[in-house]
Amino acid sequence: MKLYERLVVDLKELIEGGTLQPGDRLPSVRKLTRSHNISPGTVLQAYGVLEDSGWVEARARSGYYVLPRRHIQFPRPSVYQPDEGTRKVDVGELVFDVLSAATDRNLVPFGSAFPSASLYPLRALARSFAAGTRYLSPWEQLDNLMAGSTDLRRIISHGYLEAGCTVPPDDIIITAGAMEGLNLCLQAVTQPGDVVAVESPAFYGALQAIEAWGLHAVQIPTDPVLGVDLDALETALQRHPIKACWFMTNFQNPLGSLMPEKAKRELVQLLTRYEVPLIEDDVYSELYFNEAPKPAKAFDTDGIVIHCSSYSKSLAPGYRVGWVAPGRYRNVLLKRKVTMTVATSVPSQLAVTEYLKRGGYERHLRQLRNALEIQQAQMLQNIARYFPAGCATTVPEGGYFLWVELPESVDTLELHQSAMHAGISTSPGPMFSAQRGFRNCLRLNYGHPWDESMEAAMKRLGGLIEKQLG
Amino acid sequence: MKLYERLVVDLKELIEGGTLQPGDRLPSVRKLTRSHNISPGTVLQAYGVLEDSGWVEARARSGYYVLPRRHIQFPRPSVYQPDEGTRKVDVGELVFDVLSAATDRNLVPFGSAFPSASLYPLRALARSFAAGTRYLSPWEQLDNLMAGSTDLRRIISHGYLEAGCTVPPDDIIITAGAMEGLNLCLQAVTQPGDVVAVESPAFYGALQAIEAWGLHAVQIPTDPVLGVDLDALETALQRHPIKACWFMTNFQNPLGSLMPEKAKRELVQLLTRYEVPLIEDDVYSELYFNEAPKPAKAFDTDGIVIHCSSYSKSLAPGYRVGWVAPGRYRNVLLKRKVTMTVATSVPSQLAVTEYLKRGGYERHLRQLRNALEIQQAQMLQNIARYFPAGCATTVPEGGYFLWVELPESVDTLELHQSAMHAGISTSPGPMFSAQRGFRNCLRLNYGHPWDESMEAAMKRLGGLIEKQLG
Repeated sequence: MKLYERLVVDLKELIEGGTLQPGDRLPSVRKLTRSHNISPGTVLQAYGVLEDSGWVEARARSGYYVLPRRHIQFPRPSVYQPDEGTRKVDVGELVFDVLSAATDRNLVPFGSAFPSASLYPLRALARSFAAGTRYLSPWEQLDNLMAGSTDLRRIISHGYLEAGCTVPPDDIIITAGAMEGLNLCLQAVTQPGDVVAVESPAFYGALQAIEAWGLHAVQIPTDPVLGVDLDALETALQRHPIKACWFMTNFQNPLGSLMPEKAKRELVQLLTRYEVPLIEDDVYSELYFNEAPKPAKAFDTDGIVIHCSSYSKSLAPGYRVGWVAPGRYRNVLLKRKVTMTVATSVPSQLAVTEYLKRGGYERHLRQLRNALEIQQAQMLQNIARYFPAGCATTVPEGGYFLWVELPESVDTLELHQSAMHAGISTSPGPMFSAQRGFRNCLRLNYGHPWDESMEAAMKRLGGLIEKQLG
Repeated sequence: MKLYERLVVDLKELIEGGTLQPGDRLPSVRKLTRSHNISPGTVLQAYGVLEDSGWVEARARSGYYVLPRRHIQFPRPSVYQPDEGTRKVDVGELVFDVLSAATDRNLVPFGSAFPSASLYPLRALARSFAAGTRYLSPWEQLDNLMAGSTDLRRIISHGYLEAGCTVPPDDIIITAGAMEGLNLCLQAVTQPGDVVAVESPAFYGALQAIEAWGLHAVQIPTDPVLGVDLDALETALQRHPIKACWFMTNFQNPLGSLMPEKAKRELVQLLTRYEVPLIEDDVYSELYFNEAPKPAKAFDTDGIVIHCSSYSKSLAPGYRVGWVAPGRYRNVLLKRKVTMTVATSVPSQLAVTEYLKRGGYERHLRQLRNALEIQQAQMLQNIARYFPAGCATTVPEGGYFLWVELPESVDTLELHQSAMHAGISTSPGPMFSAQRGFRNCLRLNYGHPWDESMEAAMKRLGGLIEKQLG
């Protein structure tokens, strides 16, 4: 973390903690320069970030003043009504093309699925790995096979307890990232040809998994703020032989929606009544800006919630260490896991386990959450500045995606092409739909530290949208 | 490697190289003690190993003399004729039970699927990983996603060249071990309900994958020495709508059979004629005792061979780094891979890549092959000594499995149970059959350095077999 970023984080904490109230004046640049022994440029850079992201405002010849929170108001994106039938999914080629393009390091990565790797403690993990393997006995190799490292499962079990769930280590299976877990869960509770409910818009990974396994999807309308529509879900449960739901309850990808606890409880009750398992994709819950959200798993009394998560977004991108708390589906899932990949990478498990034992995870998470919140504010500021009036956007309370609804005549598949030519990747709305819907919507990634090239890219993107509007 | 083991390897090299000929006397213990500056106990231990494994014999008051190679003759196991129909596979529960049991570290691991981790350079890999990640830039993370590390694919491509195959790096996809690759290949070229040809006996992982994906199996009789029976395969191709073959051409698991080059060439020609893809499971080819065997892929001109391998048996157990050379199926396979696990563990890829760049792989492989060959001889010696007369066994030219055919009245599922009670794991024959055949056969693992407890276990196992014979 750079000096000015550190200062931004500190000042934000003072504002959030109430030490600095809306209307208060920030310390003068000269004062901070002396007290913190840093350059005036650094202070000004920090104040600039706070100003850009709407935390403070500069008043001429007076200084910087704390603003009330969330003063930028955006219209909310609409809830779309997907068609109510079941359908075969055909999203693979489009998603694959967009993802392949997004690994080009010369692009401004608004279309990326990942946050910047610079936000993660990669070196500390490497040191942990070296320490973890130094005294590794051959037998310990075996302990990491099958369900995975006992130590790691114990740590994950503790985490569940803090989130209000009782999940003993034996009920946890380590997987090659959440994605393997989600795929195996889906295959464990369905047969090809079955019907599965997903959100609309849905995470394209869910759509791809459904396509690969030969399933049909029912799309449930999903509110950009409150998550999946439970009335619509109940109607769908009555109309279709739904064999499983695959939902993201916390900071849904792509919307960023967060289901309130009450809704999560009702969701679990509803599915328990219909005896339909919930595959809960919960990979973003650690990236909250306000309060740690609970998973739906916390309200599960009958073991119908299969909770899938990972360290890929919170600690160790690329390590491919995830897990599943499969409830009553443990045995069938463990068999699938062993059949599919035998075991999860042992060095990856060791590195993560050793890092978590050493402490420092909470501090890293605080920094990560702060960075993402600042970056979100920066991107929102840029949308307000450069995108045409009337654009709607979500303002998620966590994660690193914005869902932007553009005027109806805009075609984001076209926009994606023209943006790529301009060196900018985006994720067009149709990636998140079984029927190529959401053609005027866009998912934008704010998971990368903001810089001038990003501001320029947002300006360019705004220009390309204006151009389509003619 | 311990001192006496080093000495065993050195002496074996002298014998194999012809410096020491059959009938030659080994240097006296006193002489070696002085020249090598080691204790007489160490020399005697080495000579004992060579004697036990049939390389030399002790003559009273004269010393140790080199014996002609392979002097222990065993009958060969029979070729069984599996039923010719297609069948649903139901092997999962049995295999799972046996594998779960085999992770108990208190058992003598004759039933294990893995060689001893002590035979692998785990610390050197850990050092390589630490060095590889030290200067890892966030962007390099991306280079390891999708198809996997470019550097690693380049190294694998060089390996193919040495084996007589032209496979450019772009035609290679890194997978979470060979097992993920094999599963994805199977799913890429078949639909649930299709028919797939496997060997008989077959690797249980193939049977599990077929079961999980809802396929039907045709079992092709397989010679314990020469591999799959090509005439029987052609008959099956005529009778059944076979959509793919899953075969192990080199040191087949469980038989240890090695298809001659001529047979590999004919196999590829036959499948090319029928336009049926060959999924070639080739994870043991580096573990040869005599000459490096070629894969069937080397004879593939039409891109119908999907070659799957890994570093799990040759270098880095538990790292889960494998690869696929998918021929004409590259694009469909890459999509499946990204859908299923997004990417292969980045630290695992880095550790293996860095190790391979540093050199030392060839030396490690030579030691590993030597160790396995010695251990094979020790186990064969024990079979000759403790098992009832008339037991047939394969004597593979590589790998770490023996396939033992016991008298017809022996039930190896029962034997497995009684052996477990005696603290010994085994792999009963029915694990390798879609119809629970091979009830009087046993796969034994010689991948662990021999010690007294193993000799005692072989003696005990022999006793348990005798007991069944009554």
